[in-house]
Amino acid sequence: MPRLLIRNVSVLIVPESGDCGVDESQDIHIHDGQITAIVPTGTGPESARAEAARGADPTEVVEGTGLIAVPGLVNSHTHSPMVMMRGAAEDLSIEDWFNQRIWPMEVNLTPERVRVGGRLACAEMLLAGVTTYVDHYFHADQIAEAALEAGIRADLAPTFFSSAGPEVIEAAITTARGLRTRGPRITASLGPHATYTVSDEDLRRTADIARAEGFRLHLHAAETDDQTQSSVDRLGVTPMQVLERTGVLDAGALIAHGCGIREADLPILEQFADRTTVASCPKVYLKLAMGTVTPIKGLQSIGVRVGVGTDGAAVHNTLDVWESLRLVALTQKQREQDAEWMNVSDTLRLATRGGAAAAGLADQSGALEPGRQADIALIDLSGPHCQPVHDPRAALVYSVRSSDVVTVLVAGEVVVRDRRLTRMNLEEVLADAKDLAHTLVDLSKGGAVQHYAP
Amino acid sequence: MPRLLIRNVSVLIVPESGDCGVDESQDIHIHDGQITAIVPTGTGPESARAEAARGADPTEVVEGTGLIAVPGLVNSHTHSPMVMMRGAAEDLSIEDWFNQRIWPMEVNLTPERVRVGGRLACAEMLLAGVTTYVDHYFHADQIAEAALEAGIRADLAPTFFSSAGPEVIEAAITTARGLRTRGPRITASLGPHATYTVSDEDLRRTADIARAEGFRLHLHAAETDDQTQSSVDRLGVTPMQVLERTGVLDAGALIAHGCGIREADLPILEQFADRTTVASCPKVYLKLAMGTVTPIKGLQSIGVRVGVGTDGAAVHNTLDVWESLRLVALTQKQREQDAEWMNVSDTLRLATRGGAAAAGLADQSGALEPGRQADIALIDLSGPHCQPVHDPRAALVYSVRSSDVVTVLVAGEVVVRDRRLTRMNLEEVLADAKDLAHTLVDLSKGGAVQHYAP
Repeated sequence: MPRLLIRNVSVLIVPESGDCGVDESQDIHIHDGQITAIVPTGTGPESARAEAARGADPTEVVEGTGLIAVPGLVNSHTHSPMVMMRGAAEDLSIEDWFNQRIWPMEVNLTPERVRVGGRLACAEMLLAGVTTYVDHYFHADQIAEAALEAGIRADLAPTFFSSAGPEVIEAAITTARGLRTRGPRITASLGPHATYTVSDEDLRRTADIARAEGFRLHLHAAETDDQTQSSVDRLGVTPMQVLERTGVLDAGALIAHGCGIREADLPILEQFADRTTVASCPKVYLKLAMGTVTPIKGLQSIGVRVGVGTDGAAVHNTLDVWESLRLVALTQKQREQDAEWMNVSDTLRLATRGGAAAAGLADQSGALEPGRQADIALIDLSGPHCQPVHDPRAALVYSVRSSDVVTVLVAGEVVVRDRRLTRMNLEEVLADAKDLAHTLVDLSKGGAVQHYAP
Repeated sequence: MPRLLIRNVSVLIVPESGDCGVDESQDIHIHDGQITAIVPTGTGPESARAEAARGADPTEVVEGTGLIAVPGLVNSHTHSPMVMMRGAAEDLSIEDWFNQRIWPMEVNLTPERVRVGGRLACAEMLLAGVTTYVDHYFHADQIAEAALEAGIRADLAPTFFSSAGPEVIEAAITTARGLRTRGPRITASLGPHATYTVSDEDLRRTADIARAEGFRLHLHAAETDDQTQSSVDRLGVTPMQVLERTGVLDAGALIAHGCGIREADLPILEQFADRTTVASCPKVYLKLAMGTVTPIKGLQSIGVRVGVGTDGAAVHNTLDVWESLRLVALTQKQREQDAEWMNVSDTLRLATRGGAAAAGLADQSGALEPGRQADIALIDLSGPHCQPVHDPRAALVYSVRSSDVVTVLVAGEVVVRDRRLTRMNLEEVLADAKDLAHTLVDLSKGGAVQHYAP
C-alpha cells in the first residue's frame, strides 16, 4: 500500500485516562494502513523522508491545515440495515414499537433489502466520521458486502431467536464463521438476540462454540429495569446472572444497553471485566421512555469498558455517533446528578477507545498513536456553531455536527474525501434505498419475526 | 417590496392542535413580507398571475423542488452574545459555572464585544433556520445592531440585576424604549434577570412600567427545584408566587426554564395563561445536572404556551434549535415516562407556534399560512441521515441537522441562500469573533457582575 501523510493537522490525543489534549501542527505518517509516526509538521521521521527522497513509494498527501484529526468514531451497537425503517415507528411504547411495527415489518427482510439498507448505513456513518461499526442483524453476509464495498470496518453478529429453531441458529453461526474469511476489516461475533428471546440452552450452546472457536457474543441484555425485574420474577435471576450461568460472560460479551444492570450485578460482571464491554445508546432510552440509562459509572468502577452506539435507526433515527456521545455526556450528568461527571475527555474516550474495545479492537484502533490502525476523521471546527474555540474537546462533544467531518480514513485508505465517499456512488445508494423502502414497512403479510414479552 | 414565489416546495402544515402534515408540490406566494397564498404549484392565485403578466412587480422565484418549507424556528430564550464564551466553562456545577466563570467573565463585556458576539450568534442561527430569537442580555442596543445587520427578527430584553443599582435599571428600561424605534423586525421586552437577583420592589416597579407602556417581561424563574425550595425557605413563597405578587404575571411574562414550577403553582399561572409563556432549553438542564426539565405537560394543561430555546452558548454550546427541539421531545418522553407523549407533531408545534408565542408574535409568525409573516426555512431531507423518509415530521424532529437548512426567509426577504448569508460576510464575522474571544474569558481583572446564591 502507498504511504500517506496527513500534513499540518491538529491531533486529538485521547490517553487511557485523564484529560484529552490537542497537539497543533502535526504530521501523521501512515504506512500499510497503520500510523507510523505523529510528529511536528515537517520534522520527520527521517526514514520516511529518506524513502520518499529516493522515490521508494509515492506518498499521498492529505492536507490537514485548519482541521483536527480525531480517532475514527466507533458505533458500538447498531442494526445498520434498519435505516430502511427510519421514521416508520414513531411515538410508540417499547412494546408497541416491537410488536405492532418492527417485528411485523421484519418478515419483509430479504438479502437484497438488507444489503441495500446496509450500504445506506455505511454511507451515513462514514460521512459522519464513523470508521467502525458493531452490527447485530440478520443476513449478516449481506451487511459484510456493504461494509466491504464502503471500506468501513465492521464487526458483524449474525442474529437469531430461539423461536426460529435450531437450523436457523446453526445457519447464523455458519454465517459468522464465513465472515472470518472476508478480510481484515471484517470481524465476526455470535449474535443471540437477547436473554429474553434466546433460551438458556441456546445461550449455553452458543457460548460453548464461542469459547471453542474464539468468538465473542454480542447480545441485548437488561435493556430496561423492567426487563431485569421480569427476569427476576420469572427465572429468579437477573439477566446478568443468566449470562453468567450460561457461560456467555466467560466467553466474552458485548452487552447492548444494560440500563437494567443493578448494583448487585456488578460483582458478577467484575469477574469477567477483562472480556466484557457494554454499548450505551441513550437517544433510544429517552425516546422509548425506558426510565434510565446505562450505569456507566458503576460499570467503569469495576473495569468494564463502555462504548457509544446508536442502536438501529428505526428507533434512533440516525447512525450519528456524535449525537450519541453528546447524549451520553448529557444523560450521564443527569443520571449521576453531577455536572462534573462524564467530562469532555471521558466522553471522547468512550466514543473512541471505549468503542474500539466494544468492537474487539482495543489494541488496534481507538487512538491516534504509532502502531495503531489509521482510522481517522478530520474535522472542521471553523463553522459559526463551533467558533470561537476556547476548548476543542468541548467543541467536539457539544458543538460539532456530523457535517463538519471532511475526510475519513479507514486502515489508512481515504474513504471520504472533501465530504464525499470515494468508493460508493451516494446517489445510487440513495436511489436503491428509496426504491425498496416501501417493501420494508409493508404490514400486509401479517405475522412477525418474534413477539416482545420479556 | 418585490413579490417572491417559492416554487414547487413541500410545505409543513402545523395546525393549532392535532397532527402536523405535509402538502406536496406547493407554491408559496409572498408579498410585502407576508404569505399571500399557498397553492398547488402553478395554479394561482389569479391576482398574482395577472399582476405578474402585466409586469406590475418583478417576482423573485426561489426554487423549492426537493425541499420542505417549515415555519422559521424560534429560539425562545437565549443570551446570544455569550457565543463568545462557548466552551469556556465546561463540566461545572451550576454554582461554579456562575460564580467561578461566567459572572466573573462578564465584567469584560463592552458594547463592541457584545455586538461582535451578537453578529456571530445571528449568523449561526440564520444558517440553521432560526428566523426569530428572544434575547435577554446586556448592551441590548448592540444586539439590535447585529440583528438588523443580519436581517433576523429579534425580541430583546435589556437585562439588569438589582445589585447594579437604580441608574442601571433605569438605563436598561430606557434602552428597551429605544429598541421600539428600530423597525418591524425588532421588538423589546423588559429584562429583570431573575426572581433571585432582582428585588420584589424592583420587579414591582418594572411590572408597573411594563403595564403602563405595553411591554412584557422576560426573566429567569424557578430554573431548578432547588431554587424553588430556596425561595420557599427564604421568602415563604415559590418564584411563581413572587411573580404573581409583584405584578409580573399580570403584566405578561416569558419565563425562562421553569423546571422548578410545582403543581401548586399551576392554578396561579392559569389565571395569567393568556399572557404567560415559558421557554424550555433542556440541553442546559441535562448538562448542569439540574435534576429535572420544564413541566410542559402541566403547563399545557392550563393553557400556558411553551417555546423551545437554547439559552446562551456558554452552557448550551450551540444556538441550534433543531437540537433543542429534539431534546425537548426526548426529555419530555423521559420525564413523563410515556413514549407516546410529546409526539413529533407536538414537538414541531412547540418550536414554531410555541416559539412565536414566546416571542410575542403568536398571530404573526410560527406557521405557514396566508396573512402571516413569511418567516420560512427550506430544508433538504435528501441526505443519507434522513433517507428514506417514511415520515417527514419524524425526519425533522429526529434526523435533520442544521446543515440541512438551504434557504431562509425573514419577512419575505432571502437572508440565507444556498447555505450562505446574504447580508453578512461570514468570514469577517468569524474573524472579528476570534480576534476578541480571549478578551471575554479573561479572569485577571477580578470581580463579578453578580453572585449566584438563589
